[in-house]
Amino acid sequence: MPVTLKDIAEKLNISITTVSKALKDYPDVSKKTKRLVKETASLLNYKPNSFAVNLRTKESKTIGLIIPEIVHHFFSSVINGIINQAEKKGYLVIILQSNESYELEKKQIDLLLAKRVDGILISLANESTDYSHLNEILNQNVPLVMFDKIAKLVNCSKVIINDRQAAAIATQHLIDIGCKHIAHFRGPLLPQNSIDRFLGYKKTLLDNNLKYDSSLVYISDDMSFENGKTNISKMLSEHEHVDGIFINTDLVAVGAIAELNNRGIKVPEDIAIVGFSNWFMSSVISPKLTTINQPGFDMGKQSFKLLYKEIKASKKNNPLVPKTVVLDTDLIIRETTSSTR
Amino acid sequence: MPVTLKDIAEKLNISITTVSKALKDYPDVSKKTKRLVKETASLLNYKPNSFAVNLRTKESKTIGLIIPEIVHHFFSSVINGIINQAEKKGYLVIILQSNESYELEKKQIDLLLAKRVDGILISLANESTDYSHLNEILNQNVPLVMFDKIAKLVNCSKVIINDRQAAAIATQHLIDIGCKHIAHFRGPLLPQNSIDRFLGYKKTLLDNNLKYDSSLVYISDDMSFENGKTNISKMLSEHEHVDGIFINTDLVAVGAIAELNNRGIKVPEDIAIVGFSNWFMSSVISPKLTTINQPGFDMGKQSFKLLYKEIKASKKNNPLVPKTVVLDTDLIIRETTSSTR
Repeated sequence: MPVTLKDIAEKLNISITTVSKALKDYPDVSKKTKRLVKETASLLNYKPNSFAVNLRTKESKTIGLIIPEIVHHFFSSVINGIINQAEKKGYLVIILQSNESYELEKKQIDLLLAKRVDGILISLANESTDYSHLNEILNQNVPLVMFDKIAKLVNCSKVIINDRQAAAIATQHLIDIGCKHIAHFRGPLLPQNSIDRFLGYKKTLLDNNLKYDSSLVYISDDMSFENGKTNISKMLSEHEHVDGIFINTDLVAVGAIAELNNRGIKVPEDIAIVGFSNWFMSSVISPKLTTINQPGFDMGKQSFKLLYKEIKASKKNNPLVPKTVVLDTDLIIRETTSSTR
Repeated sequence: MPVTLKDIAEKLNISITTVSKALKDYPDVSKKTKRLVKETASLLNYKPNSFAVNLRTKESKTIGLIIPEIVHHFFSSVINGIINQAEKKGYLVIILQSNESYELEKKQIDLLLAKRVDGILISLANESTDYSHLNEILNQNVPLVMFDKIAKLVNCSKVIINDRQAAAIATQHLIDIGCKHIAHFRGPLLPQNSIDRFLGYKKTLLDNNLKYDSSLVYISDDMSFENGKTNISKMLSEHEHVDGIFINTDLVAVGAIAELNNRGIKVPEDIAIVGFSNWFMSSVISPKLTTINQPGFDMGKQSFKLLYKEIKASKKNNPLVPKTVVLDTDLIIRETTSSTR
């Protein structure tokens, strides 16, 4: 058991109150007693009980983070950015994983609220369409910041990229290198970022007077390596002329490339590919993947910074004005769209 | 601000003590008052203050986890295993990253102890050679479990793999497919797992009557992709006859393969390679990497299970008997050691 004030009091044969006052430098305790108490506390390795401290300050100095998936290059980069920044400000981070499940996400928010965290950071599960659990956080006046996978309708601060614009840049790049029949492997139907990337793809085709054909849009349900392989097989059996694919996320793109390699279809000569996220793996597979760089570490850092400001404002009972931070992305051109095609 | 007992008391015009007693079903409060209080608490969405609860039960239901690196396939799998298991038992996990720094690791342990976590899980930073900060955890009777990168001399429970045996299996496989001049890219000098893998490599050479040549052992200081490339360049300039390499970790092996591909040196025909960890990437690069499968998710799960048992035992003041769990590994044979060489 940790050393308590009582242990120090017993050792010195004085009252617990005197020990407590001595440690807090109250003026009605003699210098000699203070010195004695502090030396004993140090000797016994006494540490103030942080729960008791919390009860006084009403701060837990702990925040909660809920993400859909941990074993994922992008999200682990975000976590890295968050805990780095949090540590600088003396905050600890409790991490929970929703596994893309709405039910789990809801339960985890309850857990964090019961734990009285000072604020919550969240990237939504694909399944989440009802937002009452998020509004519950705001109703309790607990600061909330959403990042990457957000709900537009929830009135809180957000850190995002411009998914529509990034998708437009990716699609325009395929058009610029000469692709005329461009397919899209999109994410699931619900997440906002999956919708926005699809809309960016569609609009760019139309802006360039290319036909938009909905049968060229394939869904990757669980955004997996396998999805990439099966989508390629399906696409090849249904369409002959596809010469470029914009793929919602790198892992699916890597699966697609593996399947094209297996079938002896040349990338980029026969089919050019652009991915999304700039996972490290994209730079070492063969051929190397052209992709949109999504700034995971920075997104984590900015999300914590926003949350921290809101925690401070909320402590002073200042009104919160939700803010949306949009981070820059870049197109990283590599071999899957090389100009030699 | 969250709803407090005071809010309920004011609303009903009764004392805070009565509210508190009513919620706890004390016999000296009337049934009517209890019902009224409970209904009001539910209406106002009152949640008991977890800090106050903690003060009573002396349990935070929170554990701390310190790992060297988050953006790392193996460690993110371990985290996944830990938080999955912890959630099942109602525990939350605070995650900190030591960045392989001893100083940071020490500071983080202090933070977690001050936070009064119920237990700590740790995989050591490469720099950690002094263990007083770990013994400090034990001195405070806080349960501690180390995993993967452990300190043999610290008397706590551990979850590990048999690194020496796994390295022996990897090296033996290279010998079995006909390699005679086998190099080793090892990890830094201090971590126990890096030492053990090296010893497994060395012993296997000697057991097979092959010469051990220390100049064939190259260090990967930061275990990076770049390390793999530079080690290959250095090795090729110093040795002509190397026909196999056992590499301490997959990321370095992937860098090595990239450099060999660049130079037109054929893998496995000219040089065969075995990695370590079975990172997902290993199965999609070209050629696909033969490697030792390290069970990250299971290691996380087993580590939490051990910690949980110790937390329960410590609550009952039962003596702790440190236990070491050794998990199985397998050799996954792929193209970098294919038998066609």
